[in-house]
Amino acid sequence: MFPDRLAKVAARVAAHLGEAMAPLGAEPVAEGMRYASAGGKRLRAFLVMEGARLHGVPDDQAIWAASAVECLHAYSLVHDDLPCMDDDDLRRGLPTVHRKWDEATAVLVGDALQAFSFELLAREECSPDAQVRADLVLSMARAAGAQGMVLGQALDIAAESVARPLTLDEITRLQAGKTGALITWSASAGARLAGADAGPLAAYGDALGLAFQIADDVLDVEGDPAALGKAVGKDEEAGKATFVSLLGLDAAKRRAQELADTGCEALSGYGAEAECLREAARFVIAREM
Amino acid sequence: MFPDRLAKVAARVAAHLGEAMAPLGAEPVAEGMRYASAGGKRLRAFLVMEGARLHGVPDDQAIWAASAVECLHAYSLVHDDLPCMDDDDLRRGLPTVHRKWDEATAVLVGDALQAFSFELLAREECSPDAQVRADLVLSMARAAGAQGMVLGQALDIAAESVARPLTLDEITRLQAGKTGALITWSASAGARLAGADAGPLAAYGDALGLAFQIADDVLDVEGDPAALGKAVGKDEEAGKATFVSLLGLDAAKRRAQELADTGCEALSGYGAEAECLREAARFVIAREM
Repeated sequence: MFPDRLAKVAARVAAHLGEAMAPLGAEPVAEGMRYASAGGKRLRAFLVMEGARLHGVPDDQAIWAASAVECLHAYSLVHDDLPCMDDDDLRRGLPTVHRKWDEATAVLVGDALQAFSFELLAREECSPDAQVRADLVLSMARAAGAQGMVLGQALDIAAESVARPLTLDEITRLQAGKTGALITWSASAGARLAGADAGPLAAYGDALGLAFQIADDVLDVEGDPAALGKAVGKDEEAGKATFVSLLGLDAAKRRAQELADTGCEALSGYGAEAECLREAARFVIAREM
Repeated sequence: MFPDRLAKVAARVAAHLGEAMAPLGAEPVAEGMRYASAGGKRLRAFLVMEGARLHGVPDDQAIWAASAVECLHAYSLVHDDLPCMDDDDLRRGLPTVHRKWDEATAVLVGDALQAFSFELLAREECSPDAQVRADLVLSMARAAGAQGMVLGQALDIAAESVARPLTLDEITRLQAGKTGALITWSASAGARLAGADAGPLAAYGDALGLAFQIADDVLDVEGDPAALGKAVGKDEEAGKATFVSLLGLDAAKRRAQELADTGCEALSGYGAEAECLREAARFVIAREM
C-alpha cells in the first residue's frame, strides 16, 4: 500500500510542479529549479497528502502544500551540496546544480526555490481559507529557519570543526532541525489544511523524522552501496558521531523500532485509516524505500 | 521631512528586529542574521510605513511588513556578496558575513533571513486579517523569486560572461528584477495592508526603483567616494553597461528626473498627505541620502 501510494504522490508532484513552474520560463535559474526539484522519494509530499486525506482535504488542494515542501527540501539540498557546505558533485546520481551550472546559479536556484515554496502555500488554490494559508506559511517558515532546518545545517557544519564527537543530545538536536522540522511540518500539514488539531500528526512526524535519521546511520554502516546508489561508511571514516557510533548498532536499531512504534501509536485516534502512515514508519526504519 | 521620517523608521526597524529576533538565541546563524540586518538606509521600510500611513494602517502593524522587507533585502545582500557572486569583502564599511564568519554561515544566514521575512509577514501581529497576510506573503514571494529579485541577480551575473554590453532594454529588465521588484512591493505594501488598490503606490514604486538605479549609475561616474563610503568608477572600469554608458550622463539625469516626476504624479490621488513620498523621490534622484 505505502510504496504504491508513494509512487502515485511522486508522479502527482512531478506533474504539479511542471505546471506550477511553467510560467517561470526558460531562464537558467528556472531550469535549475526544475532540475533540482525533480526526482527524490517524495516522502515529505506523501506525508502531506496522507495527512490531508485523513482530514478529508481534497487532493487538489493538498498537492500545493505537498509541492511546496518538496521545493523547500530541494532548495536545502542545493545549498547543502555547495562547495562551502558538503561539497557534493552528485545528487541522486546526477551532477549537483553547482556542477551542472555554477556556484552562483546554485545559490540563486536555492534562493528562488525557497521563495517559490512560500508562493505555493500562499496561493488561493492551496486552501480557500486565508487563515489556513497564513498558518501554513508561518509554520513552514519556522520549520525552515534559524530554529529549524537552517539551525540543523549550521550545527552539522559546526560539528566538523569541533575536536570531540557530538553527544547524543547534540546529535538529536541537530537532527531535529536538519531533517526533523520539515518532516514534522509535512506530517502535520494535512491537519492544518483542515484547521484541525495538528498534535497527533506532529507527534507521528517527530518520531518518524528521528527514526529516519537513525535508520540512515544504520544504513551507512551496513547498507549495500549498489542498492543505495551512494557510498557507505562515510561517517565512520570521517570520525563523525552518529546514532550508531553513540548507541551501538543493535541499540540504534532498537531505538529506531521504538520510535516507529511511538509514531504509530500517536495515530491511534485515526484508526485503520492511518494504516498507510503506519506502514510508512515501518518502511522508513527498514529503509526499503 | 523625508530625512527625519527615514531616520525614525530606521530606529523603529532596529528596535523591532531586536525584539523579533530575540527568541532566535545566540547561535552563530542568529548572530549573523542580526549583523546582516543591522544598518542600511531602510528606504524599503520607509516606503512600507509611509504607504501604510496613507491608508490609515497603524504603525505597530506596518512595522512587521517593514521589518520583513528589510530582512529579505538583507538576505539578498549577504548572498550577493558571496565569493561566487560579487565577491565583496565590505558592506556598509564592515566585513561582509562570509568574511566575518565563513561562506557556509553566510549561505545559511541568507537562507534563514529569507525564511524569517515570511515568518514576520505571516504572524498575526502583521495584520489581524489573514487574507491580507496571505496576500503580503504571495506578493513578496513573487517579488523575491525567479521572476523578481533572483531573476535580476541572475541576469546581472549572466551579463558578466557576455562579450557585448547589455542593451537598454536588457539593463532595464535586470534592474526591474534586482532592485525594482522589492521597492515596488515595499511601496505597495501599505495599500495591501489596508486591503486597498495597490495600483497607484505600485506605479510610484516602479518609477522610484528605476530612478534609484539610474541615480546609482550617475553616482558611480560623478560621486564623491568619501561621501559615498565606497569606490566609484567601478562600472566603467569593468566595461559594464550602465544607464549612463547607454544614455550619456545628461540624458541619464534627465531620465531619472522624469521618472521621479512620473512617480510623484502617480500619487496625485493621495493629495498633500503623500508629500513625504514625493520628497523621497526627489531625494533618491539627488541621492542626498
